[in-house]
Amino acid sequence: MTIPVPGATIGVVGGGQLARMLAEAASPLGVDLVVLDPTPRCPAYPPARDQIVADFDDENAISELAERVDALTLEIELADPEGLREAVETTGTPVGPDPEDLRMTRDKLREKSRLADAGIPVPAYRSVDSPEDLRGAFEDLGSPLMLKARCGGYDGRGNHVVDGVDAATDYFGTLSGLIAERLVDFSREVSVMGVNGADESATYPTVENVHEEEILRRTFAPARTDESVRNRAQSVASDVLEELEGRGVFGIELFETDDGEVVVNEIAPRPHNSGHYTIEGAVTSQFEQHVRAVLGLPLGSTELRDPTVMANILGDVDSTRPATLLGTGDALATSGVHLHWYGKRDVRPLRKMGHVTATGPTLEEANRTVDRALTSLTFE
Amino acid sequence: MTIPVPGATIGVVGGGQLARMLAEAASPLGVDLVVLDPTPRCPAYPPARDQIVADFDDENAISELAERVDALTLEIELADPEGLREAVETTGTPVGPDPEDLRMTRDKLREKSRLADAGIPVPAYRSVDSPEDLRGAFEDLGSPLMLKARCGGYDGRGNHVVDGVDAATDYFGTLSGLIAERLVDFSREVSVMGVNGADESATYPTVENVHEEEILRRTFAPARTDESVRNRAQSVASDVLEELEGRGVFGIELFETDDGEVVVNEIAPRPHNSGHYTIEGAVTSQFEQHVRAVLGLPLGSTELRDPTVMANILGDVDSTRPATLLGTGDALATSGVHLHWYGKRDVRPLRKMGHVTATGPTLEEANRTVDRALTSLTFE
Repeated sequence: MTIPVPGATIGVVGGGQLARMLAEAASPLGVDLVVLDPTPRCPAYPPARDQIVADFDDENAISELAERVDALTLEIELADPEGLREAVETTGTPVGPDPEDLRMTRDKLREKSRLADAGIPVPAYRSVDSPEDLRGAFEDLGSPLMLKARCGGYDGRGNHVVDGVDAATDYFGTLSGLIAERLVDFSREVSVMGVNGADESATYPTVENVHEEEILRRTFAPARTDESVRNRAQSVASDVLEELEGRGVFGIELFETDDGEVVVNEIAPRPHNSGHYTIEGAVTSQFEQHVRAVLGLPLGSTELRDPTVMANILGDVDSTRPATLLGTGDALATSGVHLHWYGKRDVRPLRKMGHVTATGPTLEEANRTVDRALTSLTFE
Repeated sequence: MTIPVPGATIGVVGGGQLARMLAEAASPLGVDLVVLDPTPRCPAYPPARDQIVADFDDENAISELAERVDALTLEIELADPEGLREAVETTGTPVGPDPEDLRMTRDKLREKSRLADAGIPVPAYRSVDSPEDLRGAFEDLGSPLMLKARCGGYDGRGNHVVDGVDAATDYFGTLSGLIAERLVDFSREVSVMGVNGADESATYPTVENVHEEEILRRTFAPARTDESVRNRAQSVASDVLEELEGRGVFGIELFETDDGEVVVNEIAPRPHNSGHYTIEGAVTSQFEQHVRAVLGLPLGSTELRDPTVMANILGDVDSTRPATLLGTGDALATSGVHLHWYGKRDVRPLRKMGHVTATGPTLEEANRTVDRALTSLTFE
């Protein structure tokens, strides 16, 4: 099913920065957005056509949204798969990704087992619902290991490296609903944005991600690694796309292991922070691509135009306060820098508030541009 | 004066496609737009934060707009310079461009004489307010000549080539408020987007424009002409920028004459159709650049990223009707094409409804992409 443009409206569960950038990319195609978000005047509110103020799992609100639009999507894994499924079945409004993709990626155990069953490389893992399970995991996978909440983790919250049952109990409380993963000796974190369209799929180039405190700091496109590793990541990402049911853009995070293999870390069923570089760096941005995919339109070119570096603007504050970003004048004086602000009213420690991107003849030059721009940015 | 971003709001007199693309470019900088336009839900309405529904010359409405925003600008020459001046003086809200720039460019006689006085090359011209004036113009400038309404012309409306007083009277009625120009033997129409910032100026590359029936059809960036001509156009454009009083982006249209000189045809005190290629083609789009200039922020790089071709999507209909664009699916299947839809509800013969852009390793390749995309687009 193809929904013609111009004139289409997409409903988005979630109105944060992803929905904001989706609205910015949808407008040139003549596509309007209506977002559903509990925060009045959420980040996506200014460029979107309208907002329904409601919780992400408010089934009546999701149904109302479905009735007002031509297609549904989401920008946040907190969206309730059941509510989405029901809204889709009642209203006949198509949704991308499929609620099943959301159910799978919301649960790290379900995700890992689905991928492993398909022969896609993932770190060795065990389900943990008791101290006994965890002890078994230490025996099978070694110590320390990575313990994660199966559901609800975000930007590293809910992930913890533990070396025993006591440490695990201290961090997680009850040892239940967890997944233990062998600690991967990785030399690099890479990712691939993938997209499933109506009857085609495509992958963006393999990029490299630098995290600190489990929060993405910078993306380098392309990844500064061997071509064989980049190609392997492309191949794994294509395999992952085949396991997904619905349409849309997916962020596929991988580890490059010390022996040159790649394993899947996790999948985001939506545009992803490590794909923000595509706005300036690729022929088609991940946001326009998501619009195309969700509406069943032909996919755009995923080609990289130039070496590109993206860096997040994180809250460099000690406590929550109204967000006033200083130094943008100096940052904008840096030739070639692109500023993206998310419109969040409050800044919190390490909160993602915006990002800067630079393209250049080389990654090194683009990275220097990003460095210069970031230096001047700080929160009041 | 610099208005910090994020958080600034710009008021725009006019809510057509230029304001729409301005809103799309302002959002990533954390800048909101409020537009003033007499048509409810005008093209800029979806991406803008708000619209004041009022006529372009409604002084009360312009004052209300000025009070609600941090800086004023315009996207249409119909904006009244006096109303703008008064709103600026009453409210203290800065405006770019300066109302004087608007007054000058609204009146082709004032524009030509200002440029000529500054030693900037323009076609030879005469003021025409009577049949006698016109006869004198024929004597001085030859026949036929180009006769134009001094004020109110747009996309060739109000321009006519005439070979005598009778022909002129047939077209214009009363021979008053006109300007006669020597017909320039030009081999090419070129243009340069220029920008005046707080204390800096910059020019975009010299591009080539193909018109039919005096309506822009296609822009080639860079212009397919000698480097010496491109450089000459850059130099003339810089001279023009020095004659302008206020901040903002200006479209400077020129003729390349058969003997390799350039003369200024006219100046638009705003982003311009021949600058739409900058969205994908240049490091900083003309729309982001205009936002930066109007707020007094540092200007962005005007560098061309790749050879780029832009083609307008014009109303291919015989009469006005609700706008339904067909063939976008096929157009979007053309790898590398970018679609921009303006959100106009009605299509009219030759009305500018949107545009497509392609970048490529060569202008020829970008042009083939644009050709393929345009072929499939038609109005129902």
